[in-house]
Amino acid sequence: MRILQVGAGGVGSAAAAIFSRRSFFDHVVVADYSMERASAAAALDDRFSATRIDASSAEAVTALCREHGITHVFNAVDPRFVMPIFDGALAAGADYLDMAMSLSKPHPDEPYARTGVRLGDEQFAAAEKWARAGRLALLGIGVEPGLSDVFARYAADELFGEIDEIGVRDGANLVVDGYDFAPSFSIWTTIEECLNPPVIWEEGRGWYTTEPFSEPEVFDFPDGIGPVECVNVEHEEVLLIPRWVKAKRVTFKYGLGAEFIDVLRTLHKLGLDSTRPVRVGGVEVAPRDVVAACLPDPAGLGDRMSGKTCAGTWVKGTGKDGRPREVYLYHVVDNAWSMREFGAQAVVWQTAVNPVVALELLARGTWSGTGVLGPEAFAPRPFLDLLNEYGAPWGLRESPIV
Amino acid sequence: MRILQVGAGGVGSAAAAIFSRRSFFDHVVVADYSMERASAAAALDDRFSATRIDASSAEAVTALCREHGITHVFNAVDPRFVMPIFDGALAAGADYLDMAMSLSKPHPDEPYARTGVRLGDEQFAAAEKWARAGRLALLGIGVEPGLSDVFARYAADELFGEIDEIGVRDGANLVVDGYDFAPSFSIWTTIEECLNPPVIWEEGRGWYTTEPFSEPEVFDFPDGIGPVECVNVEHEEVLLIPRWVKAKRVTFKYGLGAEFIDVLRTLHKLGLDSTRPVRVGGVEVAPRDVVAACLPDPAGLGDRMSGKTCAGTWVKGTGKDGRPREVYLYHVVDNAWSMREFGAQAVVWQTAVNPVVALELLARGTWSGTGVLGPEAFAPRPFLDLLNEYGAPWGLRESPIV
Repeated sequence: MRILQVGAGGVGSAAAAIFSRRSFFDHVVVADYSMERASAAAALDDRFSATRIDASSAEAVTALCREHGITHVFNAVDPRFVMPIFDGALAAGADYLDMAMSLSKPHPDEPYARTGVRLGDEQFAAAEKWARAGRLALLGIGVEPGLSDVFARYAADELFGEIDEIGVRDGANLVVDGYDFAPSFSIWTTIEECLNPPVIWEEGRGWYTTEPFSEPEVFDFPDGIGPVECVNVEHEEVLLIPRWVKAKRVTFKYGLGAEFIDVLRTLHKLGLDSTRPVRVGGVEVAPRDVVAACLPDPAGLGDRMSGKTCAGTWVKGTGKDGRPREVYLYHVVDNAWSMREFGAQAVVWQTAVNPVVALELLARGTWSGTGVLGPEAFAPRPFLDLLNEYGAPWGLRESPIV
Repeated sequence: MRILQVGAGGVGSAAAAIFSRRSFFDHVVVADYSMERASAAAALDDRFSATRIDASSAEAVTALCREHGITHVFNAVDPRFVMPIFDGALAAGADYLDMAMSLSKPHPDEPYARTGVRLGDEQFAAAEKWARAGRLALLGIGVEPGLSDVFARYAADELFGEIDEIGVRDGANLVVDGYDFAPSFSIWTTIEECLNPPVIWEEGRGWYTTEPFSEPEVFDFPDGIGPVECVNVEHEEVLLIPRWVKAKRVTFKYGLGAEFIDVLRTLHKLGLDSTRPVRVGGVEVAPRDVVAACLPDPAGLGDRMSGKTCAGTWVKGTGKDGRPREVYLYHVVDNAWSMREFGAQAVVWQTAVNPVVALELLARGTWSGTGVLGPEAFAPRPFLDLLNEYGAPWGLRESPIV
C-alpha cells in the first residue's frame, strides 16, 4: 500500500505520528501547500517522503499519484478541497479516504426547512463512476463522521432489534491556558458546520433542516467530562447513517457551550463567517480566512491544553430481547495522554487515528468494497477491535431503563 | 476663507451639504482618497471643487493647501490620519480643525489604571509651535467632542458656581431596517473608542484609566429616547474639558446597549479589533479593516434608519445661587429630519454641523485664537446661538433637586 496523504496540518501531522507506529503500508507521501509543514511531518519515519501540493487542483493530485505509484489517497485537508482530491484520485485509479464530505449549499428559499445541496451530494453523484472503475471512495472516516458511524452500524448489528433514534453527541472539557478564546479544532470547519442549517433525518420525512443551534439539550458525557449543552449542527453522520442503517431518526448535536455559540452568532451577524472575498484597501480576502488567521493554530495548542474530548453515538430503541434499550457508544481521549504518546492534541489525534485504522483494515483485506461508501457500509467489529490495539479504547454506557 | 476639507465619507458629505447652505466662505476643496466620493460631495455647490488626496501624507496636505490658497484645513477623516493632516496644515500656514484627536496608546504595564499616551498628546506637544506661528488648531469640534465641550464651558460660565461632575452622555434609539447589525457610526472609530481603556479625570488625581465598559449606568435620554445603558468609554472630552473648565470629575459614557457591547467584546476576544496586519493566504490585512469592510457603510444607511440620536453634557454641582443644581445640556437629531433636510443620516449630520458652525464663527472673527485649543477655550454662547440658526436647536433639562 502506497499512500498519498494530502495535508500536514493538525490532523495530518497526528496521522503521520500514528502511521509511524504501524507496519501495514509501504510508503506515505506527505503533501501540503506548505513544504515546511510537509517536511516536518515526513521527518518522523524513513517510509515517508514530503512534497508540495496545491490541493485545489485535481490534476496535481492525479500527477502526484502517478509519480509515486499511489494506491490510496488520504485527504487530510479542510473540506473546501474534497472535490479536487476526490476527482484526482479516481483519475489516477487510486482508492480514496476522507474525513469530511463535499460541502452543502442551503436551500435558496427555505434554508431552515428544506435541504439544498447536501453534504456529500457531489460525491455520491459520482458513485457509479467509482463502482465502474472498481475503485473505493470511503467517505467520512475520521472520528465524527467515522467512528460515530461505525458505532451506529455496530448498534444496529449487535445491540438493537429496532432503533428509534441515533444521535451523535460530541462534547469536551478541554481548556487552553493563556488564551481568551482558542478553539481546539479548525475554526474554518467549525464555522461551516455550525452556521449552516443543521440537518436532521426522519423516517417518512427524509432529510430536513432547522435554524442553527436548534433543539438545545444537556448531554451528560462520560469519563468525568460531565454535562455540556449541545445543539443541532450540520454533520455528515446524518447524511451517511440512514443510507446503511435503519433508524427512525438521526441527529447530530455538538457540545459547543454558551460562549462558543455566542462567538459564532456574532461572527455571523457581522458577516465575518463569509467565504466570499471582500475588498479591503488594495486586496481581497475572505472574512472567514481572516478570523482563522487571527486565532492560534489549534494543532499547536496541545501543550497548553488540558482535559478530555469525547465523541460518541447515542442509540435509543428496542434491544435484541425486545425490551427498551439506550446506550452511548463512545471514545474519549485525554489530551495529556495523546500529547505524551504522540505529541498531538486530543481532538486532532482522535480524528486522525480512525483513517489509519481503516487503511490498515483495507491493507489486510478485512475491509473491501467499490463505489462511494460510508464507514457504516463495513463490518464494525474489526474496526472497533483494531482501534483498541491503537491505544485508545472505546466504551459503552448502558442507560438504566425505568 | 478657503477651506480644504479632507474626507468625503459620511461626515464629510454631510458637512458639504451644510456648507452649501451658508455664505461665510469663498471656496471648499473636497479631497478624498476616492476621487469618486470627493466628486460626489463637491457636486452640490459651484463653490466646491474635488481632488484626490492621500491623507497619510503631510506633504500632500501641504501641497494641496499651497495649490489652492487654503486658509483653513478641516479634517473629516478617521483619527488615524490626524497627525499628517495637522502637521501638513501648519507647514502650509493654514489653520486647522478636527473632530477627533491624535490616538492614544495604553500604558504598557498598567493599561487599566494609568494613562499611557493620551488622546491629543501628540497634538498638544506641538502647541508652542502653533502659537509661535500665529496659527490656530481647534481640536475636537464635532458633536462629541465639540458641542459637548461647548456645553461644559457654557455650564461653567453661566449656570454653575461650582461643578462636581461633568459627564458627557451619548445615547440613541436608532434602528436600521434590514440588517442584523449595522452601526450608525464608523465601526473603526467605535472599536478604537470602546476597546481602549476608558479615561476619567478627577481633581487631585488627574487622568486615570479603567477596564473597558466600566461603571455601567442607565441614563434617561430626552425627547422620547428614554433610558439606555451607558458605560465608560475613552473620549476626547475627558482630555479637553479639564484644561479649560474647573470641575471635580469629568467622565464620558456611551449608550452602547448590551448587544453592541457583546459584539465588541467578541471582536476583542478573537483579535478582530486589531490594527496589526495578519497574513491571510498571499496578502496582509488588518483585522479591524476587514470588520469594517464586512459592515454596511453607516453613511449610506440613512434611508433605512429611524429614530433619534442625542449628544449632551450632564453637569452636577452648585448653581450661581449656591444651591445644588443638576442639568443635562443636549442636542437631539431626528433621522427623518436630517434625511429630509440634508440627505444625511442623524449621527453624521450631528457630527458635521459643529465644525461648520465653528468655521463660520472664525470667519466672522467671533471666535479667534492661536495655538492648540479645544472648543471649551472659546466663548460658548455665540456657538450655541448660531447652532440654533442651522436648524437643530439644543436643549436644557433641569433636574429637580430633592
